[in-house]
Amino acid sequence: MDDTDKLHIVLCQTSHPGNIGATARAMKNMGFNQLRLVNPLEFPSDHADARASGADDILQQARVFKTLEDAIADCKWVVGTSARHRNLPQPLLTPEPMAQQCLEVVNQGQNVAIIFGHERNGLTNEELSKCHVHVTIPCNPNFSSLNLAAAVQVITYTCFLAFQDTSNTLPKQYIDYDSLASQYAMESFYDHLGQTLTAIHFLEPEFPKRIMPKLRRLFSRANIETTELNILRGILKAINRQFNNNH
Amino acid sequence: MDDTDKLHIVLCQTSHPGNIGATARAMKNMGFNQLRLVNPLEFPSDHADARASGADDILQQARVFKTLEDAIADCKWVVGTSARHRNLPQPLLTPEPMAQQCLEVVNQGQNVAIIFGHERNGLTNEELSKCHVHVTIPCNPNFSSLNLAAAVQVITYTCFLAFQDTSNTLPKQYIDYDSLASQYAMESFYDHLGQTLTAIHFLEPEFPKRIMPKLRRLFSRANIETTELNILRGILKAINRQFNNNH
Repeated sequence: MDDTDKLHIVLCQTSHPGNIGATARAMKNMGFNQLRLVNPLEFPSDHADARASGADDILQQARVFKTLEDAIADCKWVVGTSARHRNLPQPLLTPEPMAQQCLEVVNQGQNVAIIFGHERNGLTNEELSKCHVHVTIPCNPNFSSLNLAAAVQVITYTCFLAFQDTSNTLPKQYIDYDSLASQYAMESFYDHLGQTLTAIHFLEPEFPKRIMPKLRRLFSRANIETTELNILRGILKAINRQFNNNH
Repeated sequence: MDDTDKLHIVLCQTSHPGNIGATARAMKNMGFNQLRLVNPLEFPSDHADARASGADDILQQARVFKTLEDAIADCKWVVGTSARHRNLPQPLLTPEPMAQQCLEVVNQGQNVAIIFGHERNGLTNEELSKCHVHVTIPCNPNFSSLNLAAAVQVITYTCFLAFQDTSNTLPKQYIDYDSLASQYAMESFYDHLGQTLTAIHFLEPEFPKRIMPKLRRLFSRANIETTELNILRGILKAINRQFNNNH
């Protein structure tokens, strides 16, 4: 195993602390130890400890965040797990190619996050819009909602197999993850973009019409590089300069 | 899926009824429905029903046996799950080749059983001796005991992948090409973009600095959809409207 501490499991809005404990156990079974929690309903918790069954160390070093943005700020590739068909899908992977790509990211020394949503509702469209790709676990189409920790078990098992495989084949699509903009930089860009689109009256904050989620989805899918982000920021500055000069 | 009712999940001496319910859910998620229980400590049980989360039908038709022999009497191939290294090991498989062999058995119209032991102790040597092969889930050697239902989830997921008809499997990465913008539309957008960036003095035609090739590369990579292109064109129009109003 190599650099398993660069793979982060992120649970969003988890309502049952037992699932957090079971997730820690599933992760540790597969040799992963970096757990991040976004706004859990109850944590720390005796229920979590009980279900962890010896993975207490994962729970103790788990980091808790108020927002998903904060939790993935230092990650270069973000995977959202989704059972449902979405209106605005990102590229949709099965676990095996997703795990291969996680390995590529980690082998380049970069952080990857795999995020899991609320037990009943899954990831919200807003949460999914922050992901570069979506992964779906193939399953019975008539009964497709896996228990949260069971989904983590399948995903981390698949990652374990990929990380173990020493016969590393050439990736189908090479991405230089070091060159990618961090999620922190992307959030800053989205703020700037939203302000600019509002200033030129393209975006009306009262009637946003899903413009920003759609633009996020586009830019997430493109894996924006730092130099590209500089160009995009430069365009926004030029627009604002024009606007300010004339008002 | 084909003849999934010939694959039997057999739980031996299960002490926590919640694990029986979670097993039923994991099985149903993966399209399997034949559950057999050998001497469970508590069944039926409200705990089992709660954790089944909609897989109640699996629990209702589960068959309870006094002995493992009775539970596997009608099976032609029996797989024992084992985390520990045994003194007298049967042939030891990983889940993938085991699942392939399960498919072969089922395709010949025969019953196969995959048996799981007590939560803490696993299968006894006597129980393991009744199996044709043993299967071990690859995992962290320092923390190798999976939760019972988590182990069932990994095994049934692997069987699901093997049993899936290859003609209707999810593609590894799905792109809806019908929704993509035509290259004609993209060229028209690039013209509009170049004119707009020139108008706001971001792009100087005499010193273009490879801005447009870099932006083309970004948008090409993203596989822009028609609805996204409409948003981008709308933004360019809004910029031009601001600019023309003020000049």
